[in-house]
Amino acid sequence: MEENQINRPVTLLDVAREAGVSPSTVSRILNGTAKVSQDKRKAVETAIAEMHFEPNQLAQNLKKGCSMTIGIVVQDISSPFFAETLRGIDDGLKGSGYASVIVSGHWNAQEESDRVKLLLARKVDGIILLSGRIEDSAVLHFARQRPIVATGRSIRSDTAIGFKLDNEYGALLAVRHLIDLGHRRIAFVAGPADNADSCERLAGYKRALLEANLEFDPQLVVESDLQEASGLLAMNRLFETKQQFSAVFAINDQTAFGVRLSLYRKGIRVPDDISLIGFDDLPSSSYTTPPLTTIRQPLYDTGLIATTALLGLISGKKIDVTLPALELMVRETTRLFR
Amino acid sequence: MEENQINRPVTLLDVAREAGVSPSTVSRILNGTAKVSQDKRKAVETAIAEMHFEPNQLAQNLKKGCSMTIGIVVQDISSPFFAETLRGIDDGLKGSGYASVIVSGHWNAQEESDRVKLLLARKVDGIILLSGRIEDSAVLHFARQRPIVATGRSIRSDTAIGFKLDNEYGALLAVRHLIDLGHRRIAFVAGPADNADSCERLAGYKRALLEANLEFDPQLVVESDLQEASGLLAMNRLFETKQQFSAVFAINDQTAFGVRLSLYRKGIRVPDDISLIGFDDLPSSSYTTPPLTTIRQPLYDTGLIATTALLGLISGKKIDVTLPALELMVRETTRLFR
Repeated sequence: MEENQINRPVTLLDVAREAGVSPSTVSRILNGTAKVSQDKRKAVETAIAEMHFEPNQLAQNLKKGCSMTIGIVVQDISSPFFAETLRGIDDGLKGSGYASVIVSGHWNAQEESDRVKLLLARKVDGIILLSGRIEDSAVLHFARQRPIVATGRSIRSDTAIGFKLDNEYGALLAVRHLIDLGHRRIAFVAGPADNADSCERLAGYKRALLEANLEFDPQLVVESDLQEASGLLAMNRLFETKQQFSAVFAINDQTAFGVRLSLYRKGIRVPDDISLIGFDDLPSSSYTTPPLTTIRQPLYDTGLIATTALLGLISGKKIDVTLPALELMVRETTRLFR
Repeated sequence: MEENQINRPVTLLDVAREAGVSPSTVSRILNGTAKVSQDKRKAVETAIAEMHFEPNQLAQNLKKGCSMTIGIVVQDISSPFFAETLRGIDDGLKGSGYASVIVSGHWNAQEESDRVKLLLARKVDGIILLSGRIEDSAVLHFARQRPIVATGRSIRSDTAIGFKLDNEYGALLAVRHLIDLGHRRIAFVAGPADNADSCERLAGYKRALLEANLEFDPQLVVESDLQEASGLLAMNRLFETKQQFSAVFAINDQTAFGVRLSLYRKGIRVPDDISLIGFDDLPSSSYTTPPLTTIRQPLYDTGLIATTALLGLISGKKIDVTLPALELMVRETTRLFR
């Protein structure tokens, strides 16, 4: 990210890089929540000491002209999806002296715009905008007042950085995995037709089929609203059409949980009778029975990296932002077709 | 709550009362997320019109001296437990013209105190303090500057209202349910020994045993840290002790998810071999396989009621706060002992 010298508060991410371990490892050591090898612990402790990282420093040393607060705009405060990214932001701010305030745009462009204005009126030092409905041009406009880092967008200026997930590639990974296991008739529980993420994931689904010379059958695609309840209903609807399929790709993990319950209700075993794969890798996805095979989105890392990028912008530095790649997490809901 | 006249912004809760439906029903109608009978819809629409409830009113009409912002203090921004209450607060603020900002105390009294001071320095009009570690006296002190509504506390002054869940009663309901089903050896996966909620729930567990003339066996109690992973490990530890039991009461739903996976790994069927009950009723608890029997905490209602109470305090009104009672949700993880 930078060479040699860091002209902004040292963050957890810097410590992780210096120690050669993952940010989650540093987080676990700071929180004392899990076992970590002696070697890693030592490396992290050394890095913390050398870099003068102070994880519990409080937001008392307000600098002149700085409110020492950053604003975070989410769209749904109760969503486990945003929760993981907020956890990353929380960890990213450790030791920076900055406090965060969170507001919600509720997936509504007007409200989102009002909330950003509220944050700017309160003199936050920078803003992290997660997803959202306002135009890119509006984000760039607001960023003239205070630096903004935004997810789900490809924008870039001196005071704004956007980054975007490769949804098509993620869906490609998921469907390729099912095809590699021998599945040929693969259902897709999509999101709403006007949802950009869903369109991109549908493109990835189609690309994987094309690669394997499998025909795209629109009858195998059903819509959901990205929540558990509608995943269950979408799956029930698909069964009513009497389509044959041996695997299901769900647009996200919450939808997959609903699909899973629909299958359970019908006495269909997962993965023995039908394979199931999700998208996101929510914390709870490791605790379904059986644990869910899914595409891991770097939700936590997104928060951590967005924070580090924003602290860089606040210090007037140019920052390169690279998200870790999407990753296939093979757990226990997918198996060889037979 | 009040007689005849409401001297504060009309909230979703007022509309629900006027229409004689649940707050969730009003929320569903406003969001258009689920089917509601014609009668209920009509009643809600009438109430909205008569009470001049404006769900999309924005925080633009700032009154003199009011920032039209309320501050919310949580302890863990990524917890599904707080998420449900935040959703209730969010809905409670609809139509009030108030925006909310959320900060985290991270279960740390010093940080929590600093965050409350930050909110007060930003001139929020009131504060909702969820759980928390600072002393009651500190809350009452802060409340002299701005009204505070706090959960998990029994406090009361002209500018502060606290309310507290009856944890012992909830645990009593859970364990009574298992005893009614014929279970005699009931394991309890508790929280940390110094956790007040856990101590109160342990008291409820013991009270239910006493009622039924069953002896308390400390060997059937194991500790967790309230998260999925430690629920799984606690259950594994209990199996190593070779204790006999036919049912498990988990301190909360997240712990129950970990217990569920531990049983799945050992090929033990739920509820055929072992019955399992949780505590909280998280949204995801309806989507485990099988769906989890649990004690329903009014998490969403807590947020909604706390908000209505705070808006009352801000308007200088005395408000009586009554939470809906804890409720046993019988789903599919418990069955008759045989």
